[in-house]
Amino acid sequence: MANNTITAPKGFWAAGLHCGVKKSGKSDLALLACPTDAKAAAVFTTNKVVSAAVRVCKEHVKSASVSAVVVNSGNANTCTGKRGLANAVKMCAETAKRIEIEPHNVLIASTGIIGEQLPIKKITAGISKAAAKLLASSKAGLDFAKAIMTTDTKPKQAVRRFEISGKKVTIAGAVKGAGMIAPNMATMLCFLTTDVAISKTLLGRTLKGAVDESFNKLTVDGHQSTNDTAIILASGLAGNRPIVSRCPRYKKFATALAEVCDDLAGQMALDAEGTTRIFKVVISGAATKADAARAARAVADYPLVKCAINGGEANWGRIICAVGSAGVKINPNKLCCKLGPITVFKNGTPRKFDAKKASKVVSQTEHTITVDLGAGMASDFCYGCDLSAEYVRINAEYHT
Amino acid sequence: MANNTITAPKGFWAAGLHCGVKKSGKSDLALLACPTDAKAAAVFTTNKVVSAAVRVCKEHVKSASVSAVVVNSGNANTCTGKRGLANAVKMCAETAKRIEIEPHNVLIASTGIIGEQLPIKKITAGISKAAAKLLASSKAGLDFAKAIMTTDTKPKQAVRRFEISGKKVTIAGAVKGAGMIAPNMATMLCFLTTDVAISKTLLGRTLKGAVDESFNKLTVDGHQSTNDTAIILASGLAGNRPIVSRCPRYKKFATALAEVCDDLAGQMALDAEGTTRIFKVVISGAATKADAARAARAVADYPLVKCAINGGEANWGRIICAVGSAGVKINPNKLCCKLGPITVFKNGTPRKFDAKKASKVVSQTEHTITVDLGAGMASDFCYGCDLSAEYVRINAEYHT
Repeated sequence: MANNTITAPKGFWAAGLHCGVKKSGKSDLALLACPTDAKAAAVFTTNKVVSAAVRVCKEHVKSASVSAVVVNSGNANTCTGKRGLANAVKMCAETAKRIEIEPHNVLIASTGIIGEQLPIKKITAGISKAAAKLLASSKAGLDFAKAIMTTDTKPKQAVRRFEISGKKVTIAGAVKGAGMIAPNMATMLCFLTTDVAISKTLLGRTLKGAVDESFNKLTVDGHQSTNDTAIILASGLAGNRPIVSRCPRYKKFATALAEVCDDLAGQMALDAEGTTRIFKVVISGAATKADAARAARAVADYPLVKCAINGGEANWGRIICAVGSAGVKINPNKLCCKLGPITVFKNGTPRKFDAKKASKVVSQTEHTITVDLGAGMASDFCYGCDLSAEYVRINAEYHT
Repeated sequence: MANNTITAPKGFWAAGLHCGVKKSGKSDLALLACPTDAKAAAVFTTNKVVSAAVRVCKEHVKSASVSAVVVNSGNANTCTGKRGLANAVKMCAETAKRIEIEPHNVLIASTGIIGEQLPIKKITAGISKAAAKLLASSKAGLDFAKAIMTTDTKPKQAVRRFEISGKKVTIAGAVKGAGMIAPNMATMLCFLTTDVAISKTLLGRTLKGAVDESFNKLTVDGHQSTNDTAIILASGLAGNRPIVSRCPRYKKFATALAEVCDDLAGQMALDAEGTTRIFKVVISGAATKADAARAARAVADYPLVKCAINGGEANWGRIICAVGSAGVKINPNKLCCKLGPITVFKNGTPRKFDAKKASKVVSQTEHTITVDLGAGMASDFCYGCDLSAEYVRINAEYHT
């Protein structure tokens, strides 16, 4: 059977296990290693409060090569002051020691509850155990994907195989995130591996582009977390002619990476806390692309729209209300709205439509809302998901 | 028994009845009249899509005097195009005809579902009936307060009695609003009456000030509706020396009006859809007042904070996360957070605290969250309310 986990590209080993952070006994420590060294790039949250892991990782990712990534789930190691920072440093040191590299060659990520100190002894013991378990198997890759989960209901993985200059290249990814996902990557950890040979600069550029068009187009509850991190490691073992400029090979790689990220983002959206369905908001006729993006996000984040979709109600008035309060230029006399293929509002006037058909559209697992602002030529889109009573229940009681 | 309704000030008559907009059979048409003419002022939503009522009301409120206000609930008359506008004009014309004034002396407001045409014949018949029922009684005032309700569970009224230049002055108000309340007055209708003698300009100024410090400090789900309107009518019958400058009499009146609005805002917050408790967010140590307001609002609107409070969980990490993503200046090393009197986070480091006590604070009907950004001297506050599974249920099924 094909390996569809992050150990699929050549050169990667992984492990995942329970070290004692989560009271549930579920896996909470993950390790990824590239014994032959990898080039690395990362994108981080824009929240002004960041986890100790993000602070350390931002430094270490500057290293010319990276050999390991250590991740704990169940505790975010955020708002934990100097002790938290020391613990993040310790996690890297322990990992470095176990696989005989330097601490600055280790990247790190954490996710979970904010404001509590890590049980660092349990974690360092776990790192030691995980280092001894590192394998290139698909089971090891799946263990990794499971160990990064928090409120996720299932591991989320994606893989793409293609050729560059006659050589087989693989990109794989594992992602964690079910709530607080928003444009700018709230509470999302994403780990990507590839065996392509590429320069560090171009690796970073493709990652940023892929993240912008996938994870950053997705909004669950409109907020960014303190820990969001997307990391990519490239082992270079595919043997392709190295990508060092924006050539066709670069484009092929960038396209495949974007596909992997899009696949993972879709899995996250459908696994968002209490989500029963997702929707795409397309804004056209905007004065600027920024206006279009802002209006799309306003609709996707509007609680009353999210509730209506949860109830399968074609309450398009709330969509218009959200657009009107987004602070963007609109022409009320040219404003149009469609639910799927059904025009419900045209040039500022409601259209007669079959309410049952519209309710059917809104009740699908995925549908598209289109709004024309009548104010220009620009357009943009984003993805949102419904708001369910289950979301509230999960988040009223969450305390790892 | 004292009359504590909007007919309490001298010169006001009211009526409320069911005319047929709401399928439930509940009251849906309200009429307020001041036969001796009143000075009027109003504040409207900042949503760029507004109801036909708001469009008409914005014009009519410029009139030197106003004699009536007509309100329908159950249908917002928004996104209804030219026909909707013609219907709003008809409502004013019918009211004017019945009480023998000019249409431009009639103010108008609508609230309810967006995007459906008004059943105008039912409404004009209702206006004719209501005009015949107008009375200065407290029952008539209560009928008015009931007829403006939508998802409200109870009528909301407030009154203040005081003296200006030796004369008894009364201010009374009725308000409607239970969801979609946000800074900038989303889905809120407020009708205020007073018998004070005051210039039209100063009446408008006091109204704006009172609304800014009350309704605009309250956020239920972070959005502005298309219909929000706050109207004040002053009959001038109290016999006080007219207020024509910012004298001590002006301040006395402004203070009392602010108290009435604050009282009404508090009633709205506690009646917000599915709300079990409210909370005040105080931001200090901000670089600017705008930063403080923005951070306060970010906390109050953050779904994960609202869910945690619903569950009585002292999950302060989500508060810090919201502040960090608000896009304001913060100093992570000086950041502090208090839940009620309990310091949970100080200078970027978590403090040990009694979790049971903290949970008790968060479980109160009302508590205060204080965050010091450590970035300056400015401060501001706002009110929020919890997010319950009940809120989702109400709004998933709402379709008047």
